[in-house]
Amino acid sequence: MLDSDRLETLQTKLREFVAERDWDQFHTPKNLTMALVAEAGELVEHFQWLTPEQSAHLPVDTRAEVELEIADVLLFLLRLCDKLGIDPVLAAGKKLALNAERYPVAKARGSATKYNKLS
Amino acid sequence: MLDSDRLETLQTKLREFVAERDWDQFHTPKNLTMALVAEAGELVEHFQWLTPEQSAHLPVDTRAEVELEIADVLLFLLRLCDKLGIDPVLAAGKKLALNAERYPVAKARGSATKYNKLS
Amino acid sequence: MLDSDRLETLQTKLREFVAERDWDQFHTPKNLTMALVAEAGELVEHFQWLTPEQSAHLPVDTRAEVELEIADVLLFLLRLCDKLGIDPVLAAGKKLALNAERYPVAKARGSATKYNKLS
Amino acid sequence: MLDSDRLETLQTKLREFVAERDWDQFHTPKNLTMALVAEAGELVEHFQWLTPEQSAHLPVDTRAEVELEIADVLLFLLRLCDKLGIDPVLAAGKKLALNAERYPVAKARGSATKYNKLS
Repeated sequence: MLDSDRLETLQTKLREFVAERDWDQFHTPKNLTMALVAEAGELVEHFQWLTPEQSAHLPVDTRAEVELEIADVLLFLLRLCDKLGIDPVLAAGKKLALNAERYPVAKARGSATKYNKLS
Repeated sequence: MLDSDRLETLQTKLREFVAERDWDQFHTPKNLTMALVAEAGELVEHFQWLTPEQSAHLPVDTRAEVELEIADVLLFLLRLCDKLGIDPVLAAGKKLALNAERYPVAKARGSATKYNKLS
Repeated sequence: MLDSDRLETLQTKLREFVAERDWDQFHTPKNLTMALVAEAGELVEHFQWLTPEQSAHLPVDTRAEVELEIADVLLFLLRLCDKLGIDPVLAAGKKLALNAERYPVAKARGSATKYNKLS
Repeated sequence: MLDSDRLETLQTKLREFVAERDWDQFHTPKNLTMALVAEAGELVEHFQWLTPEQSAHLPVDTRAEVELEIADVLLFLLRLCDKLGIDPVLAAGKKLALNAERYPVAKARGSATKYNKLS
């Protein structure tokens, strides 16, 4: 179960981890977006040769590696949010509401068409 | 302040949003990693021509767009975790502990060198 | 048919295009790698909800959009090579030779296993 | 100097390399875009903590690693083009012409503003 103490604790531990190592100098938002996309690319690499079915039934060792890449993506996302003063959960709530407008159920059901091409 | 109700609520709302639109068929982990990296790429695009300094002082409209890309990354990360049965906060905690071993303060302080090249 | 005049002409036209617009100031290698990955992400986006089979039989309009993303990736790759003084074709030849060593036919045939995990 | 024999030879060698290893089964366009973005992410990783200035003066060993990532991006781009029947140089020429329309020198000179936001 995800809870506030753990997410807030994570963000704080991350800030301390970075400060202890004097790494804040490298953590410009520009650099953090680069680190984030690099980790997202590593995540993709685990899945690139898999069939869709294989991707839903990962061997234990692959799943463990994927878990670490997911971790890296979240860590850099949290650092980026920290530096920009953005609340990612609040942002995600706003985006979901926007998506509800862009993809009304009646029009979007069962279709992967992007909103700007939905009739 | 980030709290559990909001993150759990988000993940549940997301699951319902997807189910209502019969989109689960598209949400194989393979596809979700693609969507995630595509959003990470959109996030990078906002910063690609900025100097490090500019990236830390975004104009209001750019910041708003960046907030929506951050939201998209988090939404796809949560969907991926949902499908794989991975707790991203727990994973991030594990990765931070691993990073503490790979980057001892004495060796890593002030240096951006990757762990496998640290003396 | 790909030929030297066209690739060299392309790289030169690109250099002139950038110079005319006084854009060289934005074309640090750092920025160019960001632009490249952002375009690669846009390329991925066209395929993220497709099945493997659908990806091999693109509708005409999607194929046209994909062609433009491929173009963007090549353009930024050529700019990056121009700034770094790297010949991408020579580099690719070297990498292919390295791959032949890492993936001997006898061991690698029919397998998608990465070289560092091949027995 | 880049020339046709080398690029065509490269594409042909790549096709043979893949066939010898019975890897064509993994090379759906969908998978190839994933491999491409993963390599673009590895390219970005080499630059993520560098300043713009450092990125223009890479140490010899970093430059060698970057050369191999550039190679990987080109190799997967060529495979993707091969499978889709797209000529990347022709595509890039078309995109450059489109960019000339989107970014007239008078409007775009010295500005990094995206075309859809240029006055």
